Formats: sequence, C-alpha cells, structure tokens
Amino acid sequence: MLEVNIIKKAQSVKEASGILYNCTTAKKNSLLKVINNRIRNETSAILKANKKDLQNARQIGLQTVLLDRLTLNERRIKQMMDGVKDVVKLHDPVGRVIEKIKRPNGLLIEKMRVPLGAIGIIYEARPNVTIDASALCLKSGNAVLLRGGSEAIHTNKKLVEIIKEALRDVHLPAGCVEFIDTTDRKAVMAMLKQEKYLDVIIPRGSQKLINFIQENSVVPVIAHGEGNCHIYIDNSADLLKAEKIVFNAKTQRPSVCNAAEKLLVHERIAVKFLPCIVKRLRQAGVEVRGDKKTLSIIKDAVLARDAEWYKEYLDLIIAVKVVKNMNEAICHINHYGSHHSDAIVTNNKANGERFLREVDSAAVYVNASTRFTDGYEFGLGAEIGISTQKLHARGPMGLVELTSTKFIVHGKGQVRK
Amino acid sequence: MLEVNIIKKAQSVKEASGILYNCTTAKKNSLLKVINNRIRNETSAILKANKKDLQNARQIGLQTVLLDRLTLNERRIKQMMDGVKDVVKLHDPVGRVIEKIKRPNGLLIEKMRVPLGAIGIIYEARPNVTIDASALCLKSGNAVLLRGGSEAIHTNKKLVEIIKEALRDVHLPAGCVEFIDTTDRKAVMAMLKQEKYLDVIIPRGSQKLINFIQENSVVPVIAHGEGNCHIYIDNSADLLKAEKIVFNAKTQRPSVCNAAEKLLVHERIAVKFLPCIVKRLRQAGVEVRGDKKTLSIIKDAVLARDAEWYKEYLDLIIAVKVVKNMNEAICHINHYGSHHSDAIVTNNKANGERFLREVDSAAVYVNASTRFTDGYEFGLGAEIGISTQKLHARGPMGLVELTSTKFIVHGKGQVRK
Repeated sequence: MLEVNIIKKAQSVKEASGILYNCTTAKKNSLLKVINNRIRNETSAILKANKKDLQNARQIGLQTVLLDRLTLNERRIKQMMDGVKDVVKLHDPVGRVIEKIKRPNGLLIEKMRVPLGAIGIIYEARPNVTIDASALCLKSGNAVLLRGGSEAIHTNKKLVEIIKEALRDVHLPAGCVEFIDTTDRKAVMAMLKQEKYLDVIIPRGSQKLINFIQENSVVPVIAHGEGNCHIYIDNSADLLKAEKIVFNAKTQRPSVCNAAEKLLVHERIAVKFLPCIVKRLRQAGVEVRGDKKTLSIIKDAVLARDAEWYKEYLDLIIAVKVVKNMNEAICHINHYGSHHSDAIVTNNKANGERFLREVDSAAVYVNASTRFTDGYEFGLGAEIGISTQKLHARGPMGLVELTSTKFIVHGKGQVRK
Repeated sequence: MLEVNIIKKAQSVKEASGILYNCTTAKKNSLLKVINNRIRNETSAILKANKKDLQNARQIGLQTVLLDRLTLNERRIKQMMDGVKDVVKLHDPVGRVIEKIKRPNGLLIEKMRVPLGAIGIIYEARPNVTIDASALCLKSGNAVLLRGGSEAIHTNKKLVEIIKEALRDVHLPAGCVEFIDTTDRKAVMAMLKQEKYLDVIIPRGSQKLINFIQENSVVPVIAHGEGNCHIYIDNSADLLKAEKIVFNAKTQRPSVCNAAEKLLVHERIAVKFLPCIVKRLRQAGVEVRGDKKTLSIIKDAVLARDAEWYKEYLDLIIAVKVVKNMNEAICHINHYGSHHSDAIVTNNKANGERFLREVDSAAVYVNASTRFTDGYEFGLGAEIGISTQKLHARGPMGLVELTSTKFIVHGKGQVRK
C-alpha cells in the first residue's frame, strides 16, 4: 500500500518533469512569484502548522538544536520568501549552449544544458528546505519528490499545499512537486527503488542517513557528506592571520560542515603559535585536544585518540597535531580528511600552490577560512547543498549542478562512412 | 578469500591513485609510449595468450559474434597501439582551470579539473578494452581496477602484465592498473561494494549486466545502456536524403548502440516514402515490421507488437510507425526510446529546432545519421564509452569526463562574517 503510493508519486513527478522540460524561463519565474505571494498570504497558517510540529517535538523530547531547526517564525518565513525571490533573479541555465564543435564533415555539434528531470530530495528537520529546494528544482526545470523529516510533517504539508496551489494558478501539473506525507521510514526505502521514475536522489542530513541511502539506492545519488576540515599553519605563516582564520573557522558556526575540526601546525612555529591560539579558542569555550607533541606544549590539553582524526565534531572541539613539514600535513589531510574543505596559512607562494594542487578536497584554500565553502559565498546565488562526491558535482551545488546536458547535432544529410 | 583479494586490489588502486593525482603530463605520456613499445615487442606473446582463450571459447561453443570480438590478430594489435598513440596526443585535462570567480571580499575562486581517482571498469569479451580503457584512465590521472570477460582471461592477463612492466619502467606503482584475474562472478559483486576505495564504476556490456550493476553497486556508476534509436521523417523532409540517412543508420553497423531501430513517418508522406525505403532496406537483408498503418501500405510486413517499441534489436530488423504529426513522433520517442540518439529528417527549420529542444536524449540530430554518436566522430579524440545516464556525463565520454573538479580559493586572510 505504502509502496504503491510512493510509486504513484514518483510516476506523477516523472510525468510532470516532461512538461517542465520545455517550460520557458518566464513561466517558471511567474510560478516562483506566485509561490512567494502565497507564502506571504498564508504566513499565519504556516505558523499554525509549525506550532503543531513543535508541540509534538517537545512531547517526544526532541533535542534543543533540532527544535531550533524545526522552528519557523515571521523572520524565518521572510527569509524563505527572500530565498525564492533570489532564485527568480538567477540566470536560467536550461537551453544554454556550453560547447560548439564543428566537424570536418560539416556537422555542427552543440552541447546544451537541459534539466536533470525528476529529482528526489531526502532531508531532515528544517522545513525551509521544502521551499528552497523546490524553488531551485523548479527554476532549473526539474520536478521534485520531497521526503522531509517526520518532525516537520505538518509544516511541510502546509508548504507543499501552497506550492501546489501556485502550480494550479499558473496551469502547471500538480506533480511538479510531490511530497511523501508519511513518517513511515519504509517510504525512504521505497523511494530509493524508483529508478524508473527518478533521475537522481539528493540526500541532506547526517552521515548515517547518507550512508544508508548510498548503500540502498538504485537511483543515482549525489551525496552531501560530512566535513572533517583542516587548517594547516605553515612555518612561513603570518601568525596573526593564522590565529584569525583558525578562530573564525572553528567558532563562527561550529555546527556546520565547513567549520574547522582539525589544526595542523608546523613544528618550527608550534611553540610560538599554539599558546596564543589555544588561549583564544578556550576563551570562546572550545575544548582543545592534541597529539603528544601538542601536549608537550599545551600541558592541560586532552590526548586525541587515533580514531578521532577521522571525526567531524560539529561542536566546540578542536584536535591539534604538530607536523614535521607540509608533506606530513598534506598526507594527513588526504588520509584522515573527508575531502570537504581544507586550508593552508602560509606566506610561501610555492607552498600554497603545492597545497592547492595536492590536497584532494572539494574546496582547498590558501589564507582564508574554510567557512566560505557555500553556494552564496562562492557566488552561485543559491545552493541546494554541498556535494562531497566526485561525480557530477563537487562542492557547493547551484542551479547549473541541477542540470544535465545533451548533444544537439545539425546536419545536412551526413551519413557515417 | 576471493573478497579479501578484491579488497586488496581496490586498496592498491586507491593508493596508486594518490601518486597519479600529481603526475605530470610528460610522465603520463612517457608511460603510454612505453606501453606502446612493449605491446609491439610482445605481439607474439599476446597472440599466443589469445589463442588459448579462443581454443577454450570454441570448446564451450561461444557464439560466432563473440568469438569475433575475442579474436586478436596483428592488425587489431596495431589498432590497439594506434589507440594508445592517439591518447598520447590528446590534451591532458588535469589541472585546467575552467572557471574563475572574483568575489567582492577579494577571494579568487577557481574551478580546476582533477582526476576522478580510482575507477572500476567492468567489461565483456573485447580484450582491446583492457588497453584502451587503461590508456584513457592513466592519461587523465586515474588508477583503474579492471574486470574483463572470463572468455578473454588469458589475453587480458598478458596485456595487464605488459602494462605493469611499463609502470615499473617509469617508476610508477604497479597498483595504477590492477586486474581481477578470476572468472568467478562473485568478484563483480565484491567489486561493487568497494565504495571506500573506488570513486566510480563504469560498466560496458549488455543491458542485463548494467542493470545488475546499477542494482547492486554501492559505488557510483556511470551506466552505458542500450540504444533504441529513432529516425522521424517529417512531412517536409527531402525524401532522398531521408532514405540515405535511414539506410545508413540501420545497415552500416546494425550491432551497435547508435544504429537506428525504429522509423517514424509522417502520415502525409508515408505512401510515397515507405515503399522506396522498405525496398532498399529489404535488399540489404533488413526485416521490416510495422504498425497497422504501415501494414496498410507495406502489405507483407510483420505486425510489430506493443512491447517491441521499447526494444533494441541490434540486428537487421526495423519497426516502422506512421504518425499523425511531429507531436506524436516526439511523444513516442520520449516514451518508448532509451534516450540515446534520435534524429529528425526535415526541411522545416522550426520543426527541426523543436525536435532538438523537446526530444530528451543524449544526442539529438537534424538531418544526419544517428551513427555519429561516438567519441571520435564528436571530436573527443577517443572514448571510454557512451553514457546513457544524465548524471556527470551524457553521451560519448572522453578524457574530460574521466575527471572531477575542485575549487581552489586564493585568500589574503579573509574570514567569514
């Protein structure tokens, strides 16, 4: 019964994707504007639905962090609407010709951006994803099957209702956005088997959720995995700059994937640098752990166990390692890191270039905070998430990453010899 | 035991990929040249190994088509060597900056091509894939784990031995190319679970093999699926051109994925066009099937059953359908097709443009044969295969499609506000 329901919704999304495939930019923008208006007009209804979710969440004793993610208020609804307005302004990638090849036989071959088709999005507590992700998918000509966290079910249902009304207003099929309105976890499993109807699944959430999806999905997945981000302080670094960058990357928003989790310090500057940065981090409430060499300088730090070098804390904790040289730093990052975002602080140009070249991560920095790995900060205008895989998209994903391509070939009767 | 062996090889490939990641183009080219020389010097040893495979294949009664694919001779070995030489000449995509973004805060963000890492390739009878695929992977900085067809085991083992000797000659790790030297099918299953070590698996072979891999792989897959290719003859078509294109697309090489399988004809020209093209196709030994309207014109054609419109024949068979208009043609192709290669023959520019826009296939043609969907014909210089999926790569895949990207960010101490 449940599976039949999921199949029906996946079919509905696939069918609608055929209509969206050929939708003009003007039409897609007018849809987004109607969504925006409807959100404004129904703010109180959205808040009412959200209240229900919050009550249920408190009853089952949801963590404070998750309660905060779940909560909507007028300011956050305004942010959602601003997000939709931003997407209206973004350039539509669909139809853009990104390559032209003229062949000796006279064939003109063009590579053109087209929508991916039908996208499944699996996410957790934040209800704003329902609107953000739908806006990005629709603008790039994709239909979307949403599966939000069970905590946000009432809010999400209301938001999807609003989107469906907007679709009706502009005469687009309701299947452009479908929502799985059950909290049954089997629904996720059923969704992962709809390879006939879904072109891709984008999971956003904990590494555990993502691992589960990667292991079980027959539909191709674009994984948004964790960030075990490093900052390496080279012996040539400007130490004031280094302190500023480490402090920002660790403390500005420790709960997100591009926050720094590990600090690697060249042994020649460790004695000078570590006491200053540790003092500053501790003042901000950061717990400092370290390897043996670090502990010989920072006597009261906790010893970091070996398994910890692989870990993403997402908390006010940092592990520090003193390294012999840049080579050790690069090897450590490529081995223990999650290939998300890693930075070097250095005044040595050659070292900076070598680090950029040899560290194999989605984003590699010289003299800047890892916190910049983000669709807005990278100038994409918006982001559907940050891909940690190497296929299709790596790093912040914007509208372009929600497209595929096709070759269009102009001939004059050519045949193959 | 078997699984341990596969894990070891996957680990070995992953490790070697770290070395290849930073290999210069010159070094990679010198490796390819040594491989080329070694193939020349060991031609007789390769032919000896191939003879063993052919003897076994005949004993188990392998089909003639497969026997042909398995067979090497001096000419085919020369072709393999020419292929390697071609890859030497190709531009190395690794390290190329394909986007530059300057941000208001002064950050300079560049998007740079990097190797995918460790690639698994699963293929069937043709032993030349062992050399072709290895050359393309190595040139693009990737290490590769090969799993060839069991029929070609002795030939493949010899070819990999040659590659490994070349790797030793230029002081690169033997793990750059590993080969699964067992014919046990469980080896494929084990390979599909090495997501820790493999970045992607590229299967080449029957749709059955590809479905199996997509259903069971935890490693991301780039599928090379089947081609149920269509040619639609518009009422405005130049009918001589149409005849030439259909004849070429169907008969020039019927066993490959870009050969035409279906012919759609506008009802206004069907009575005039069908008798001519059917006569010509039949002279070339093509069996013509058709829908009821076709049968009213070509009385002795076989009725095509409904399931057939989904089918890839890979044989001298074509199914013909008379359609009311272009709209019906486009809907038919998008519904029954495999989204590989489809063509329209028309002298109406607007119709041509609409067809290119609305048909959702890897390659869409106006007035040319579908047989051009090919890495060489598209000017990529070589191809690892033809992707029929929408993620990462669609259509002919060359060196660029064997790369990922990373963002490299140049800062001056910027932190996030």
